[in-house]
Amino acid sequence: MQTSNDADKPRRPRKVTLADVAREANVSVSAASKALNHSDRISAETQRAVRMAADRLGYQRPADRAGASSGSGRAVRASRSGLVGLITSDYNGRFSLPLLTGAETTLGASNHAALLMSSHGRPALEKSHIDRLAAYGVDGLIVVGDTSNPRPPLDERTTMGLPVVYTYDPSRDPEDCSIICDNIGAGTQAIEYLLSLGRRHIAVVAGSEDFQAARDRVRGARLAFGLYDFQPVGVLFDAWSEDWGERAARMLVDRHPDLDAIYCLSDEIARGAVRGLMTIGRRVPDDVAVIGHDNWFVFSTNVHPTLTTFDNNISLIGKTAAKFLIDAINGRPHHGVTSVECPMIVRESTEVGRRTPLEGSERIFLSRGGV
Amino acid sequence: MQTSNDADKPRRPRKVTLADVAREANVSVSAASKALNHSDRISAETQRAVRMAADRLGYQRPADRAGASSGSGRAVRASRSGLVGLITSDYNGRFSLPLLTGAETTLGASNHAALLMSSHGRPALEKSHIDRLAAYGVDGLIVVGDTSNPRPPLDERTTMGLPVVYTYDPSRDPEDCSIICDNIGAGTQAIEYLLSLGRRHIAVVAGSEDFQAARDRVRGARLAFGLYDFQPVGVLFDAWSEDWGERAARMLVDRHPDLDAIYCLSDEIARGAVRGLMTIGRRVPDDVAVIGHDNWFVFSTNVHPTLTTFDNNISLIGKTAAKFLIDAINGRPHHGVTSVECPMIVRESTEVGRRTPLEGSERIFLSRGGV
Repeated sequence: MQTSNDADKPRRPRKVTLADVAREANVSVSAASKALNHSDRISAETQRAVRMAADRLGYQRPADRAGASSGSGRAVRASRSGLVGLITSDYNGRFSLPLLTGAETTLGASNHAALLMSSHGRPALEKSHIDRLAAYGVDGLIVVGDTSNPRPPLDERTTMGLPVVYTYDPSRDPEDCSIICDNIGAGTQAIEYLLSLGRRHIAVVAGSEDFQAARDRVRGARLAFGLYDFQPVGVLFDAWSEDWGERAARMLVDRHPDLDAIYCLSDEIARGAVRGLMTIGRRVPDDVAVIGHDNWFVFSTNVHPTLTTFDNNISLIGKTAAKFLIDAINGRPHHGVTSVECPMIVRESTEVGRRTPLEGSERIFLSRGGV
Repeated sequence: MQTSNDADKPRRPRKVTLADVAREANVSVSAASKALNHSDRISAETQRAVRMAADRLGYQRPADRAGASSGSGRAVRASRSGLVGLITSDYNGRFSLPLLTGAETTLGASNHAALLMSSHGRPALEKSHIDRLAAYGVDGLIVVGDTSNPRPPLDERTTMGLPVVYTYDPSRDPEDCSIICDNIGAGTQAIEYLLSLGRRHIAVVAGSEDFQAARDRVRGARLAFGLYDFQPVGVLFDAWSEDWGERAARMLVDRHPDLDAIYCLSDEIARGAVRGLMTIGRRVPDDVAVIGHDNWFVFSTNVHPTLTTFDNNISLIGKTAAKFLIDAINGRPHHGVTSVECPMIVRESTEVGRRTPLEGSERIFLSRGGV
């Protein structure tokens, strides 16, 4: 991969940035950005001063530099800040921090660093953050979601030609570059694995049908059932909660006493299912095998039986997003949705006699030398 | 509070930034930073070129601008970028995203935005990130920890006079400004509350003694026991895990059959304790009241009985840090450690007959309109 700059070497003159224009016009960077975007919130006088300053300095907006074909034919930008912006709508940080870490690993190799800003899923805040990042000259953007649901693409007046990669929640525009978890593949793999263990009376317990991830994992599961000519004993949608997992498991055993496996679409649901099964005297995995999804340590490895589950591979999504973004910055954009495999991690909840160690929060703290 | 700039008004000329020096010298910003810091990794020729460029433009390093007394007597900086950098060592994002959100609320009021970079607790990465942020002209730094343990202060050669506020993990230098959770207060409040409920045979189950948070919460609990002339039936340290909570609860009932309350220092430990008690036929809260700490929804509100617990108030820590940082940027630095109260949230695990609703991940997603 082509690296973007070489710290110790003199190089071509840097481009004129929005910050230069702002200084020339004696206004803030944010005012300069608004002025060049013909915002109503800036006085006509200031708009004129900023545009004159931009002309004097020969400032080109990223959109201008990108040329007419802002899609596949983007021109290679003349110079780089070495910075990439991440905009996350993830409030609790479960996706965005591992994704940031993965992206940084790849970005570091081409001398880039990542800056993260939080938008809480609010479009206005997202736009204002991107304006700031663009004003400070980031070379590209990674947008981080946390629902799995397709999202509206960023407005071109917001990105002004900056390359963008969408992660976890794909863009609705199929021309955009999106990196997501392979939830269909996970669903297929779960059912194939349970069948390979000899389980024949398998139920699927999903979260809310409003989530693409739920629909995709169920779709993958149905593909596997179809392929091997089996029928699930039930496919139930409701909530992403332990409580639902517990209720669903009890209901399933009640209706299908020969139930021998439950594929749960989250670790929370799986943990609830395990509890529900145990309270009515079913052993896990001896009587009923249980699979989760997310490999979230608080549910998957915090108590026995530890859960067989799928890892969302968020760090690899971050790495892939960074690689694709660097390619786009170098004039080789990717298009469409790329799925990253969710590897299955086998633990105690599916294989009789298997033992795996518990890992609490402390283990997570200690593993990165934080103490 | 004094706001830093007004988007629509012309203002004083902006200061010469490191980016200007880099462009003048035809080198990258990172090379310019290293050259001005006399790094061995930059050729003598480049160092000379950069220093000459800095002289030509009249560039002042933040350390120079701050004057001789870099502590309380910092000069007010002439101009602002409107950006604040957050450096987090928190890998899973549980602290840093809510803290970022809180900080943004306060920063927004003075027209600042926050950029987060992840250091994974690695000092070299922390330094390189701060160099980047300083080169791009951030007005100040918030350092985010996740262990509660005091940390070495940032090197002055790294911060170059930028104001810094430490959060969650305080700086070891008492002159620095640190914002932490009031863990001692939480410990005191927990015991006072259990005594007020009429509980008289109270045990404390802690996580690892290697964490300041564990030692402080136990210290607070002992203060309350002393104040009311009671003795705990036991104070046990071990791990921050459900498994430890379960073992500890069974052990305690075995040794002290009249046990009527357990103050657990994390929600994970509390959840394990509840399970341990229930498997040996003790009802929670009827026979034994259980308190946790962290208000982490995956343990506290995901299953009945929901947990009475303490909220770390991370968002308020972020707000306070942002306020103190803005004060420092405006020439009014704060010093010493400020403790933010952890409010107690009463739920089912301590009060007989109380019912509170369950909240799964989905509820968290939906509450911020992410779907």
